[in-house]
Amino acid sequence: MTTSETTSAEAAEPFLRARRPEQKQQRREDILAAAGELALADGVRTVSLAGIAARAGIDKSALLRYFETREQIFLELTAREWPGWVRALHDGLDSVRPGPVDPAGPTVRLVADVVARGFGDRPLFCDLLAHTPLNLERNVSTGGVRSYKVISLAAVDEAAAVVGRVLPDLTSQECLEFIAAIASLAGSLWQIANPAPALAALFASDPELAHACVDLVPRLRRTGEILLAGLIPSRSASDSPA
Amino acid sequence: MTTSETTSAEAAEPFLRARRPEQKQQRREDILAAAGELALADGVRTVSLAGIAARAGIDKSALLRYFETREQIFLELTAREWPGWVRALHDGLDSVRPGPVDPAGPTVRLVADVVARGFGDRPLFCDLLAHTPLNLERNVSTGGVRSYKVISLAAVDEAAAVVGRVLPDLTSQECLEFIAAIASLAGSLWQIANPAPALAALFASDPELAHACVDLVPRLRRTGEILLAGLIPSRSASDSPA
Repeated sequence: MTTSETTSAEAAEPFLRARRPEQKQQRREDILAAAGELALADGVRTVSLAGIAARAGIDKSALLRYFETREQIFLELTAREWPGWVRALHDGLDSVRPGPVDPAGPTVRLVADVVARGFGDRPLFCDLLAHTPLNLERNVSTGGVRSYKVISLAAVDEAAAVVGRVLPDLTSQECLEFIAAIASLAGSLWQIANPAPALAALFASDPELAHACVDLVPRLRRTGEILLAGLIPSRSASDSPA
Repeated sequence: MTTSETTSAEAAEPFLRARRPEQKQQRREDILAAAGELALADGVRTVSLAGIAARAGIDKSALLRYFETREQIFLELTAREWPGWVRALHDGLDSVRPGPVDPAGPTVRLVADVVARGFGDRPLFCDLLAHTPLNLERNVSTGGVRSYKVISLAAVDEAAAVVGRVLPDLTSQECLEFIAAIASLAGSLWQIANPAPALAALFASDPELAHACVDLVPRLRRTGEILLAGLIPSRSASDSPA
């Protein structure tokens, strides 16, 4: 393998070393795709830089020209997952008429359902969300974390606005509280809902551990309903002096 | 260093190799204490087996006679943290007269406050809670996880019962939902509330990232109030057909 094989056919053939901007961009995409596939199959925690490089078909040293750390790769994947989740909220809620924050009413139930399914349909996103504050933001440059935070905070704001349009009796701060709480829970509940196979078998077989089993979407939907139902009644608690 | 220095003075002096049951028990305690101290100082994620062994003053190979993995050490520490948190709930709530689930009333506010401060006073517990489903339960034998789960589920049941005694209008299932949700949030919010120092400085200095700052106890208290306020109004939502 040499570094002198630049030919006019290069763009059409697999390249050994990415030189042109579009080749470099493709390498980045290949690396991100490889990391995402491995994480979806085996969980974010099990995926190493060496594994990503092998799956992407490049050397680990070449990979390090594109990303500082494995955490940077996963933080970029997380940044790319937020917009899809927000789009699912738009798709599920933008054509819905605004309604009251009635816990038994159709609007609250639909919001909780759309939000819960938005997470349930995105297992990689849920897995990444739990790793983000725990690991991903702790092994990436400050600039890398800043870029991620700007994207994730904008997504949370937009999701809150989607909810606020259909439940206009909630303040924008209350919608943010709802989205922030449910997104944190989605990350941790996904981990609990997806134990290692040996544990899943144990939990299912042992009556003493029956509570240990969690089904992600129903649990998130129910917690979403509880949170939405509680936002207005609990206003006075936080407004009045302690 | 040999393994033949058994003398009658051994029990009173630092021992090189733990032989007697009480020495072995002390070694285990030394290892757990070392892991807890390191984790409290620098975060669970940064602590290695080699670091724990060095802090405990033993060889890594000797440490592995006591614990299978670093995760087993931290899972045992987590198991030991649950009862202290449950005790804080008893201390804060056992002498309180039962009251209605009135979100603006003193009983709901006190329950949310006692639960939130129970987590706020236990930073190691909060850090461990986020790591438990993500990492700790995934690198320990099935038997080790089972022992942990029995303890943690019993603690959640007991905490739910403490809450149910002061808020008797909630069902035991609702009290369990409240405790499970707030404990999951405590783990993930603690991570968000305790970013690496460089990030904390960035979040504080950059107006675009102002939402990224979270203060653990007020956020948990407020979310606790929202959850408690929402449990009864959302009953009909989950009981009636979708």
